[in-house]
Amino acid sequence: MISVEQHLDRILSTVTVIPPFELGVLDAQGCILAADVQARGSLPGFTNSAMDGYAVHASDIATASAESPVTLPVVNDIAAGNTKPWSLASGQTMRIMTGAPMPHGADAVVPVEATDGGVVRVQIRERRSVGAHVREVGEDVEAGNVVLRRGTLLGPGQIALLAAAGIARVRVVPRPRVVVISTGDELVEVGRTPGFGQIVDSNSVMLTAAVTAVGATPFRVGGVPDDARTLMETLEGQLVRADAIITTGGVSMGAFDTVKEVLSRVGTMRFDKVAMRPGMPQGFGVLGDERVPVFTLPGNPVSALVSFHVFVAPALRAMAGRPEPSYPPGYVPAVAAEPFGSVEGKMEFVRVILDDDRARLAGGQGSHMLGALAAADALAVIPEDVTEVAAGDELMCLPLLGREGM
Amino acid sequence: MISVEQHLDRILSTVTVIPPFELGVLDAQGCILAADVQARGSLPGFTNSAMDGYAVHASDIATASAESPVTLPVVNDIAAGNTKPWSLASGQTMRIMTGAPMPHGADAVVPVEATDGGVVRVQIRERRSVGAHVREVGEDVEAGNVVLRRGTLLGPGQIALLAAAGIARVRVVPRPRVVVISTGDELVEVGRTPGFGQIVDSNSVMLTAAVTAVGATPFRVGGVPDDARTLMETLEGQLVRADAIITTGGVSMGAFDTVKEVLSRVGTMRFDKVAMRPGMPQGFGVLGDERVPVFTLPGNPVSALVSFHVFVAPALRAMAGRPEPSYPPGYVPAVAAEPFGSVEGKMEFVRVILDDDRARLAGGQGSHMLGALAAADALAVIPEDVTEVAAGDELMCLPLLGREGM
Repeated sequence: MISVEQHLDRILSTVTVIPPFELGVLDAQGCILAADVQARGSLPGFTNSAMDGYAVHASDIATASAESPVTLPVVNDIAAGNTKPWSLASGQTMRIMTGAPMPHGADAVVPVEATDGGVVRVQIRERRSVGAHVREVGEDVEAGNVVLRRGTLLGPGQIALLAAAGIARVRVVPRPRVVVISTGDELVEVGRTPGFGQIVDSNSVMLTAAVTAVGATPFRVGGVPDDARTLMETLEGQLVRADAIITTGGVSMGAFDTVKEVLSRVGTMRFDKVAMRPGMPQGFGVLGDERVPVFTLPGNPVSALVSFHVFVAPALRAMAGRPEPSYPPGYVPAVAAEPFGSVEGKMEFVRVILDDDRARLAGGQGSHMLGALAAADALAVIPEDVTEVAAGDELMCLPLLGREGM
Repeated sequence: MISVEQHLDRILSTVTVIPPFELGVLDAQGCILAADVQARGSLPGFTNSAMDGYAVHASDIATASAESPVTLPVVNDIAAGNTKPWSLASGQTMRIMTGAPMPHGADAVVPVEATDGGVVRVQIRERRSVGAHVREVGEDVEAGNVVLRRGTLLGPGQIALLAAAGIARVRVVPRPRVVVISTGDELVEVGRTPGFGQIVDSNSVMLTAAVTAVGATPFRVGGVPDDARTLMETLEGQLVRADAIITTGGVSMGAFDTVKEVLSRVGTMRFDKVAMRPGMPQGFGVLGDERVPVFTLPGNPVSALVSFHVFVAPALRAMAGRPEPSYPPGYVPAVAAEPFGSVEGKMEFVRVILDDDRARLAGGQGSHMLGALAAADALAVIPEDVTEVAAGDELMCLPLLGREGM
């Protein structure tokens, strides 16, 4: 029997960051930058107006006030998108829109609100200093400078900055492609009615959803019967598109545990009893020339989802180049709302409903109990040496993926 | 000038929950159930073994102990997926695997660890009570009972429960389909090099990413020139696939503000100055027979992203049938790490970097400053009546979407 930490350490010391790949900036959403990115162009790319108003020589309106406005001729309109460079002579103005290029010579903008809005001549009622409402070329970003560092997570603001700085494609750590396979002669596909002795393959849809929720890309193979040859062929066939493979079932003490039987022949695979409940029978190793990580999770659905949260999700984050966050989906503190027992010598993952930070049991805790699992918000993590939790005790909880919502 | 709350109230009292739609369970990930769902079958669907071991009549092994084991003949193997109903006579055992159907007459399972693992006859070293390691039909979920209530967010566990209970398709509130349009003659498409007076259309990629980050489905139209007819035709053409439309640009005080010009003719659209910085010029209304909500956001990128967080994201959540969460992406508390000023009479959204709960300025706060925006984790929300924030002051922060990561 090994500890949860030992099994996780073995996994995290085996998996490696996926080799970088070039993607379009929008497709790179949620990915980690694999290299520093330099701006192709400056931002702004040309000196422009920050307001709708009038471009002026500030010295021409130095005396302007509400009581004694300055009137200037309006010799041009400059709209955003105007691609012609203009020049503004002293004693004149040009009407200018937000984002439009400043005419050469002009050094300030008077907002339209400080004028009479005239189109032939304009009465200016307030003075403005040199530089007022002017955005200087390069004041946000200078061409050639690093705009985003390697390791940055690309969200909406980062993608906008890249696009604006002239970057259409970036090298990122791609989302891990994760093949999801269930094993068992008892499985029927979702939508079919199981006969006596059969069950719907809910594990592969659950783990496919979990892979999506963690930000990776799932490929659901679905159910494979308990046949060594079929399973091996399936695994070999999927290796080509997999950064990782997850199987469920066939790793326990049974006489027909095909996953264990097939993969035990592979050198790097190791099957262990891990001191946890649920989820004791775990297997992990790498497969093929590319050393694709394979997680063989137990077949009970609650065990499988707990194993995913505890072992697979951290591994996928590491493969995606992310630092493990301290905040969701990391552990969060809570308080037990009711007493419950816990088995000694095993780390127990108790399905709980969180009401703010108060955690109550989500119902039946059997490892086959999907009803209670579906009611839960989080897993309360009870250490090996704790056998009794009293109401009011502090707990660490692992929020269930895909429950935070939009 | 209206307040942020007034504008948001108007939006939230106008938008409605999108009509329910039937989706496959996996496609419904992240959606809200539109109706209670009843189980088609029971869970478990048949009484089965919770362990790999031996099915017995508990009365036959009542005296079993390590010192005085009970030996019984093994008359059959029952694997998971065995679809034949067997019967177990008293005085006999059958080897049984986890999830395999219990033979008629058997009332307990002895785990293989408590035996010698025999295949012809087995020595049983521990007694087990009636019901031990047996999962009774329907003990998790009974056929016909409600398994998930209307309003439930579908994550991995919920999807697994639905699939297991025989549900392949569910009525949910679909993800809002959101059309994203930028306006302006100055825009060039991502990947093209802007000429003098031009900029890359970064707003539409930013807001497309933001729509994705909030869990809705974006359709990026991209840049549309400042031409009333083109804009109106684009809007009309997109209405058919839109649950909402977002535009950027053309809503300020400019002489060529096409969005304002075109949509002002439409009865329900209203353009307001909202007491906020950045993001003052806002427009909102509904368009077409389907009363599609239209958000006309300002064209400065920082203003656009702030407006998305403050007005559009809550509206999309409401349209998706979600209760507004109190937890991400809601407001979180933080402490100012440094002093900064704030304009009086406007709610200010300051781009900050969070180091745990300590918030420091992310750099230049101009509404065109993408560099500082891309460095930020959150928007610190400074109320209208606050003009000075001191180091150590408590702040409320709105985390930026898509920055939490995997």
